[in-house]
Amino acid sequence: MAPLYPTVTLVGVGLLGGSLGLALKKRGLAGEIRGFGRRASTLEKAKEIGAIDSCYEDFPKAIIGSDLVVLCTPAATVPEYLERMRMLVSTDMVVTDVASTKGDICSGFREAWVEPYRFIGSHPMAGSEKFGPEHADADLYEGAICFVEEMNGHDENAHQAIVNLWEAVGSNVVPVNPTAHDQLVARTSHVPHIAASAVAQLIAAYDDIDAFIGNGFKDATRIAEGRPEIWRDICLTNKESVLEGIAHVMERLKHVSDSLEAADAEKLDAFFQAGQDARDKVNKS
Amino acid sequence: MAPLYPTVTLVGVGLLGGSLGLALKKRGLAGEIRGFGRRASTLEKAKEIGAIDSCYEDFPKAIIGSDLVVLCTPAATVPEYLERMRMLVSTDMVVTDVASTKGDICSGFREAWVEPYRFIGSHPMAGSEKFGPEHADADLYEGAICFVEEMNGHDENAHQAIVNLWEAVGSNVVPVNPTAHDQLVARTSHVPHIAASAVAQLIAAYDDIDAFIGNGFKDATRIAEGRPEIWRDICLTNKESVLEGIAHVMERLKHVSDSLEAADAEKLDAFFQAGQDARDKVNKS
Repeated sequence: MAPLYPTVTLVGVGLLGGSLGLALKKRGLAGEIRGFGRRASTLEKAKEIGAIDSCYEDFPKAIIGSDLVVLCTPAATVPEYLERMRMLVSTDMVVTDVASTKGDICSGFREAWVEPYRFIGSHPMAGSEKFGPEHADADLYEGAICFVEEMNGHDENAHQAIVNLWEAVGSNVVPVNPTAHDQLVARTSHVPHIAASAVAQLIAAYDDIDAFIGNGFKDATRIAEGRPEIWRDICLTNKESVLEGIAHVMERLKHVSDSLEAADAEKLDAFFQAGQDARDKVNKS
Repeated sequence: MAPLYPTVTLVGVGLLGGSLGLALKKRGLAGEIRGFGRRASTLEKAKEIGAIDSCYEDFPKAIIGSDLVVLCTPAATVPEYLERMRMLVSTDMVVTDVASTKGDICSGFREAWVEPYRFIGSHPMAGSEKFGPEHADADLYEGAICFVEEMNGHDENAHQAIVNLWEAVGSNVVPVNPTAHDQLVARTSHVPHIAASAVAQLIAAYDDIDAFIGNGFKDATRIAEGRPEIWRDICLTNKESVLEGIAHVMERLKHVSDSLEAADAEKLDAFFQAGQDARDKVNKS
């Protein structure tokens, strides 16, 4: 049986791109996988581990003739690649991305591209604090939630092809409105990441603090290991929702600080109870 | 061979007290273990799981004749129990506690008690978001760090007995100055807990948010499941250091918020880099 996607182009071959290449290969879903990237060494590494078959440094050549193009670059660069894709996209091609923010990306291309759209935004909730093709994993997307932009002026077959792609690598597809998506992930991912980074910085000035670091600190700050440029871009492309979320956390911290200043045991109790109640929602899920 | 502690009294038989009882029993370190607590049902539960041998609702009776008394109650109640202990402590008895804050506790009793002191403050870095004797674990203290107040007017044998106690249940003892201890744990435990609780509250108003909750959110907010009254008391007994730590986190959040408002990519990069650098200290330990 012929593979589902005879030719695939991965634009960016880091953890997410590399893992997608391995996942497609492992499941026999792709014929040739082309890799495009800015760094020759990263492309070579991705080829070495079998995530891509060939390395491209020329963008149009990497795209033309491809059946599926997946933009696996940081969120802030996706609009620029979509602009470059515009003149290269054919009616045999489907295009998606893997960025953690969707509002700017899924609205920005609409004026320039021709309807019905063959770009469908995706956000697989996969990845970790690791990065680079050397950490790529053929099963990274297995069991993960993958948000896919809901039908909105898209080519129906192209949309279905992207849903099929994520399901084929083991993800559970959840259709979303890009704006609502960004508001929610600001609260469940972006702002928690910022807070974890701020908390990690509490120990920045200390040496020999090992004995004081328990599992609580480790868990609470694990995500602060994420790659700075990825999180910078996520913030910049989800500005309003992130600002709103930071303000919410600061308001809560101000409240607990005032309550402690006043030694108000009841208010402190209520604060921690509210945190426990909110966290309980997660346990039940 | 006779057990190291023929008679032990546990004041409070929740997760920490119950686990200590089980740990002493498992290792043959205790003869009779007496349990004192305010709730008969909790005492019964602790007896049922074998953490204590007998239940006491009369405090003096629970203490008199005991070789080792361990106060396993929330931090804010320890000074009150130390006051009640004062007239009951004998020269055959050693006393310690397990509270997460040490400054107030280790200074407060000094004027009332007679030198050389037979109370030595302890803080085993064990426990979790679970509570109650039903979650007690004979190996909870195995491999954990246990902070023990450094020698300071104590009876030397009593001090050594408390060091021996924690080592006997598998912990690694680290001697500390109580004030310095509290400053450090504010940054590595108390303030991270408060931040995790504030972050968890970001989802308080949302239902059906399951699909948006990834491992990052789960890790970052796990400690928010802690028992509110424990964390309220920790804050109240470590007020200055906790206030200072909250202010530090708020300053960092204000900085990232201002940087994002100005779309300053460089400052955002530096913020996340600082978080990664600080977190890297933990990985190396």
